Amino acid sequence: MRELRIQPERLENQLQKLGSFGRNEQGGIDRTTFTPSELAAREWLKSELRRAGLHVRIDPAANIWGRRDGGDHSLPVIAFGSHIDTVPNGGMYDGALGVLIALEVMRTLIDNDAAIRHPLELVSFSAEEPNPFGLSTLGSRAAAGKLSRSDLEGVTDNEGRLLTEALAAAGGDPDKFEKARLDPAWLSAFLEVHIEQGKRLLERNIAVGIVTSITGIYREVVTVHGEANHAGTTRMEDRCDALMAASELMLAFEEICRNHPSGEVVGTVGCISNFPNAANIIPAKVVFILEARGNSELEIQKVMEAWSLRAEVIGVKRKIRIERRLMLNQAPVPMEQTVIGVCRQKVDELGYDSLFLGSMAGHDAAHMSALTRTGMLFVPSLEGKSHCLEERSRMDDIEKAANVLLHVILELDCTLDQ
Amino acid sequence: MRELRIQPERLENQLQKLGSFGRNEQGGIDRTTFTPSELAAREWLKSELRRAGLHVRIDPAANIWGRRDGGDHSLPVIAFGSHIDTVPNGGMYDGALGVLIALEVMRTLIDNDAAIRHPLELVSFSAEEPNPFGLSTLGSRAAAGKLSRSDLEGVTDNEGRLLTEALAAAGGDPDKFEKARLDPAWLSAFLEVHIEQGKRLLERNIAVGIVTSITGIYREVVTVHGEANHAGTTRMEDRCDALMAASELMLAFEEICRNHPSGEVVGTVGCISNFPNAANIIPAKVVFILEARGNSELEIQKVMEAWSLRAEVIGVKRKIRIERRLMLNQAPVPMEQTVIGVCRQKVDELGYDSLFLGSMAGHDAAHMSALTRTGMLFVPSLEGKSHCLEERSRMDDIEKAANVLLHVILELDCTLDQ
Repeated sequence: MRELRIQPERLENQLQKLGSFGRNEQGGIDRTTFTPSELAAREWLKSELRRAGLHVRIDPAANIWGRRDGGDHSLPVIAFGSHIDTVPNGGMYDGALGVLIALEVMRTLIDNDAAIRHPLELVSFSAEEPNPFGLSTLGSRAAAGKLSRSDLEGVTDNEGRLLTEALAAAGGDPDKFEKARLDPAWLSAFLEVHIEQGKRLLERNIAVGIVTSITGIYREVVTVHGEANHAGTTRMEDRCDALMAASELMLAFEEICRNHPSGEVVGTVGCISNFPNAANIIPAKVVFILEARGNSELEIQKVMEAWSLRAEVIGVKRKIRIERRLMLNQAPVPMEQTVIGVCRQKVDELGYDSLFLGSMAGHDAAHMSALTRTGMLFVPSLEGKSHCLEERSRMDDIEKAANVLLHVILELDCTLDQ
Repeated sequence: MRELRIQPERLENQLQKLGSFGRNEQGGIDRTTFTPSELAAREWLKSELRRAGLHVRIDPAANIWGRRDGGDHSLPVIAFGSHIDTVPNGGMYDGALGVLIALEVMRTLIDNDAAIRHPLELVSFSAEEPNPFGLSTLGSRAAAGKLSRSDLEGVTDNEGRLLTEALAAAGGDPDKFEKARLDPAWLSAFLEVHIEQGKRLLERNIAVGIVTSITGIYREVVTVHGEANHAGTTRMEDRCDALMAASELMLAFEEICRNHPSGEVVGTVGCISNFPNAANIIPAKVVFILEARGNSELEIQKVMEAWSLRAEVIGVKRKIRIERRLMLNQAPVPMEQTVIGVCRQKVDELGYDSLFLGSMAGHDAAHMSALTRTGMLFVPSLEGKSHCLEERSRMDDIEKAANVLLHVILELDCTLDQ
């Protein structure tokens, strides 16, 4: 078993095939959840799972499961996978890589008739990415029991399509949605391979990242209330310009995050609206979303405290009112110590370099971690790019991550007795 | 004639009546050009002009003219007026006041059977304010021959309504649009009364402003090209954040204008768009409109030079590309010296205080100045507010401005022989 290796050509071939679903003219991938191209990719995936000899099942949240029974029917499942939906104009690795590495690992085990005690389940979670229904990580949240039928009720996309209908079209069952919830006793462990989406592995020339914690995400909606006035006749000293105040508030936030001693705190303002947004009217109101990410709640809290102080001073100085509303406060999720240890051991045995690192993005693994011992492996992203058509990873690195996953599963299968 | 005075009650009553067209629930006025409420206000105005005994004519640009013939048919017209359209959720004085003071002056002259040599024409210009068709001061530009039929071709509002159709619905004639152009020989002088829209008169407790120059307006569309990236996995030092760069660019512009030695230079960013504008994506592109106003071209030029230097440094520092496109470069327009002199003389004779000042806003008078000797009077704005529902002026001040206009017209009628 020690000598077992995955087949990189087969994996690469499957990556290219899945990457053709939703491919647009610019070369990016439009495979937003529950769109026709994503539904087509689901059909393809299901047929590949069956071809590989797995037993395919779609749960009420439209998560796709592919099962290989184990030798010991009393043991719970070792599950592994990711998702196949993408952001608009995204890339072919984010999500898809984790699912196809899982499939390649399954094929390797099946081809080699590997004797495994635990049942193994490949999973492709529904709607991991932000989507027009406004519910990301839908599938893994449903599995973790964090979403109920009532959360879907009345939810539509911009065109008024009901999420319940979209879910049903993908093979889910909105009426039995809560049945997608997994019993923790059913699971032994969960593993996800994903692209890093940053530059930390690449710059250190390290092939395998072992995730220690999934980042916490904190978001506030900040509204700056200034005063609309005529852009010509209002002297500079008489203005309460909401946009200039917002600019100062955003730059203060950037400065605090940039100067943070931990290299794993980031802050972003990705979304902003200005009112009334006319060239000759001094902005009356600006609304922006401020996001802080970090690997510990304390880090995030400290950043927000520092910004609050700066914001107060800016508000007084500029005679504007700042209104703040909490939008999201997702605590950081540590990965499980046993799994982290086995990952490190297998990377070492395979002779690869590895790095422990925090995941700065959210992942399905964060929700699975509420159910079972969970771990994540990262593959280097070229130029650190993701969520865009330039998203790339090297086959060399991909092959290494797949082999690590294979041997981590074999090891967990040996050592875990529940 | 020296004792002639306008009737403030009648004027106030008309202001209230016109102010009821487009009044919204918050108390602001939605009377954007060519909307149903503006068309209704036009009908009301035409009937009032006829009731006052004026001969009403609509020119091809849908400008409304109300004529009182003079005693000497060989003399050209003394014209006066303003506009009745408003910005969205605007006030009841901007524009409307100038038209209704003109009407009150006409009524006073007619009631008193004043012997006037020149024909007098009240005018209400079409589409002075920014509007969904993107063509402000449409009526006065047409009168000055600065717009042609081809400028209207294919122009639509956001809902796809053709400007030519909207113009025709307001009584204009797009096919004969260029006939709206006035022959300079037809005109003797043009006068406009308008609210100041600033605080200069109010803070000095002065009732009448005499405009020396109409501000120059310079606008650039600035596009900041950064790089979209993941808001979590991209370290602060690896970002090319277009929004943070734009914030710095805007604040630099504000600082330059605020520190300008002349109190009559102002700079504004009123309009901004961010792309892709998602909470978890680092902004790739920001487009904003930068506007500088001043009473001399040199002033504006110096401000833009100073900002260009700052922008270059910011661009290099933040690794973003700045693209600039000239949008508008409207030179400052000095008012005519004879008219300024007569205004000052009449204010003095009436015993009011006056202040010479630059207009920091654009006005129809700027375009009329290309045709004939032109002057403007300003009425104090309470709190300096305009283009909002808090826009107010005192009846006391309004009465004074109307009396000044009345006597300026009487004086010009005596002294101008062409």
